[in-house]
Amino acid sequence: MSSTGKKAIVLFGHGARDPQWAEPMKRLQSILTAQLPDVQIELAFLELMAPSLPDTVDCMALGGTEYIQVVPIFFGKGGHLKNDFPVIMAEMKQKHPGLSIEATAAVGQWDAVWQAIATEIVQQVQ
Amino acid sequence: MSSTGKKAIVLFGHGARDPQWAEPMKRLQSILTAQLPDVQIELAFLELMAPSLPDTVDCMALGGTEYIQVVPIFFGKGGHLKNDFPVIMAEMKQKHPGLSIEATAAVGQWDAVWQAIATEIVQQVQ
Repeated sequence: MSSTGKKAIVLFGHGARDPQWAEPMKRLQSILTAQLPDVQIELAFLELMAPSLPDTVDCMALGGTEYIQVVPIFFGKGGHLKNDFPVIMAEMKQKHPGLSIEATAAVGQWDAVWQAIATEIVQQVQ
Repeated sequence: MSSTGKKAIVLFGHGARDPQWAEPMKRLQSILTAQLPDVQIELAFLELMAPSLPDTVDCMALGGTEYIQVVPIFFGKGGHLKNDFPVIMAEMKQKHPGLSIEATAAVGQWDAVWQAIATEIVQQVQ
C-alpha cells in the first residue's frame, strides 16, 4: 500500500443470518482502528449481511479513497475465495480504474493465525 | 480435561465442497499433534465434508477414548454454533453417557486470535 493518499482496509467476511455473527469482525475492526488511525477500516460481506463488498468500495470511491486493501476473513480457501471473490475483485477494478484495490491472502492462509489458535488450544486442554 | 485416560481433541469446522478448504485445519492438526503427542487430534465437519462430528465421536468411543474436547473452528457465532452445535453435542452425550465430551468456545471468541490477525494485517499494510 502506498505511503500517500487516502487509504482503507475492508475486512471481508462471509456473513450470516444472525447479527451476532459479525461481533468478532467488529472487534478486529476496533483493534485495527486503534492501531492504524490514518486508515479507514470497514466491514463488508459476501452474503446474508450488509454492506456488500462492491457497495463498500463504491462509497469509498465516492469519498475519495485512493488505496483499498481487502482482507478476506475466511479460514479455508474454497469456492467463495476461488470463484466468487476473484469475480467481485475484477468487477470492482473495472468499475473504478482510478482506484488501487488489492487483496491480501485469506487470514486462514497465515501461519501466525494457526499458531495462535494452537497455543490457545494447548493452554485450554492442559 | 482430566489428567488421566485416553484423550482426544476434535477440530470441528464447517466444511466446504472444495477439498482444499480443509488444508488450514489439517495444518492446525499437525501443529497440535506435535505439541500434544499423547492426545489424538482429529478433524470433523458440520456439512459438505466427512467425517461428521457424531461419526468421529462414535469411532473414538469404540477406540476407548475417555475424554473428548471439541474445538469449533468458526469465526462468528451464528446459527451453526447457536442452534446446530448444541443439538449435536446433546445427542452425542446422550449416546455416549460414559464419555466426557466438552466443547471450548469457538476460536473466533478468543482475543488472541484476533490480535494475531490484527498484527499480521498491520504488518502487511505498512
